[in-house]
Amino acid sequence: MDQVEFQIRRSVEQVEEGTDLAPKFGADGLLPCITTDAETGEVLMLGWMNSEALKRTIETGEAHYFSRARQVLWHKGATSGLVQKIVEARVDDDQDAIWLRVRVAGSGASCHVGYRSCFYRAAPVGEDAGKPLKFTEEQKTFDPNAIYGDSPNPTQL
Amino acid sequence: MDQVEFQIRRSVEQVEEGTDLAPKFGADGLLPCITTDAETGEVLMLGWMNSEALKRTIETGEAHYFSRARQVLWHKGATSGLVQKIVEARVDDDQDAIWLRVRVAGSGASCHVGYRSCFYRAAPVGEDAGKPLKFTEEQKTFDPNAIYGDSPNPTQL
Repeated sequence: MDQVEFQIRRSVEQVEEGTDLAPKFGADGLLPCITTDAETGEVLMLGWMNSEALKRTIETGEAHYFSRARQVLWHKGATSGLVQKIVEARVDDDQDAIWLRVRVAGSGASCHVGYRSCFYRAAPVGEDAGKPLKFTEEQKTFDPNAIYGDSPNPTQL
Repeated sequence: MDQVEFQIRRSVEQVEEGTDLAPKFGADGLLPCITTDAETGEVLMLGWMNSEALKRTIETGEAHYFSRARQVLWHKGATSGLVQKIVEARVDDDQDAIWLRVRVAGSGASCHVGYRSCFYRAAPVGEDAGKPLKFTEEQKTFDPNAIYGDSPNPTQL
C-alpha cells in the first residue's frame, strides 16, 4: 500500500485535463463525497472528507469520512459493521468532489436512521410541488437503537 | 405550479422521519446537490443550491443551482441547452443534501469541460494507490469553446 500524496494545484489544465490527483478542500478543510451502490447505482449517502479521510480511503480501499457532527475521522462501518469497499473512486473536473462506487458489507445499509440509502424520501416537483415528502423505502434494514445504542444522533437542527 | 415553502426544523424526528421538507443550508447558505442520470445511474455532477435554487428546481421541474464561481442563480442549460429535467428529487436523512435524478436535453452532457459526467477520471485505490488518474470517458461530447466562448472557466485553483 502506497502512501498517497496530493499534487499542488498549478493550472486549470492540470486540474481538469491531467492525471494528477490535486484535490481542493473547502475553507473548512472538507470536500463532499458522493457514495453510490456499485451494483444498483443508488446514491447511498453524501459524506465529507478531509485530507486524511481521502488518503485513507484511497490507501485502504475502504471509505473513510470526516464526521462534521463529531469532528473526527470516521472509518465507515467501524461501529455498525457496514464497511464500504471501494469498487471505483472518481474525482470531478475541478477536483473538489469525490464519487465512490462501493459494495457495502452486511445488510448493505448506509444510513444511520436504518434505511439502505440516506435518500429515502422524494420531494414532489412541478405540478406536485409543495406536497408532502414521499417515502421511497418502506422498511428499515436495521434497528438503529440496537446498533448505535446511546450514541448521540448526528442529525443537527 | 405551487409556491414552495420550506418548513421550520423543530425536531430530529420531524426532520428524519417526517414528510415535511425542512432543508438545512450551510453557513454559506448552500447545500450540496448530487445529480445523476435517471436512466444509467451515473453521477453527472455535484452542484450547490441556495434556498431560491432549490425552490425553483422543485417548482419548475428543471435543475437550478447556485454558481459559487459566479455567485449567481444558475438555470442549468440556459447557455448550453443541456437542461436537466427532474425525474425524481430526493432529500437525505438530515435534509442537508439533495439527490436529483434527471434526463439531460441535447447531447446529454453535464460537464463544462465537455464530458458527459464531471466525474470522468478514476483514482486508483488499494494496491494501486498513488498511481495517475485514469480517464473513464475517451471523448468529449461537445467543444466547450464553441458553447461557452470567452466565458471565464468556473474552475478555481
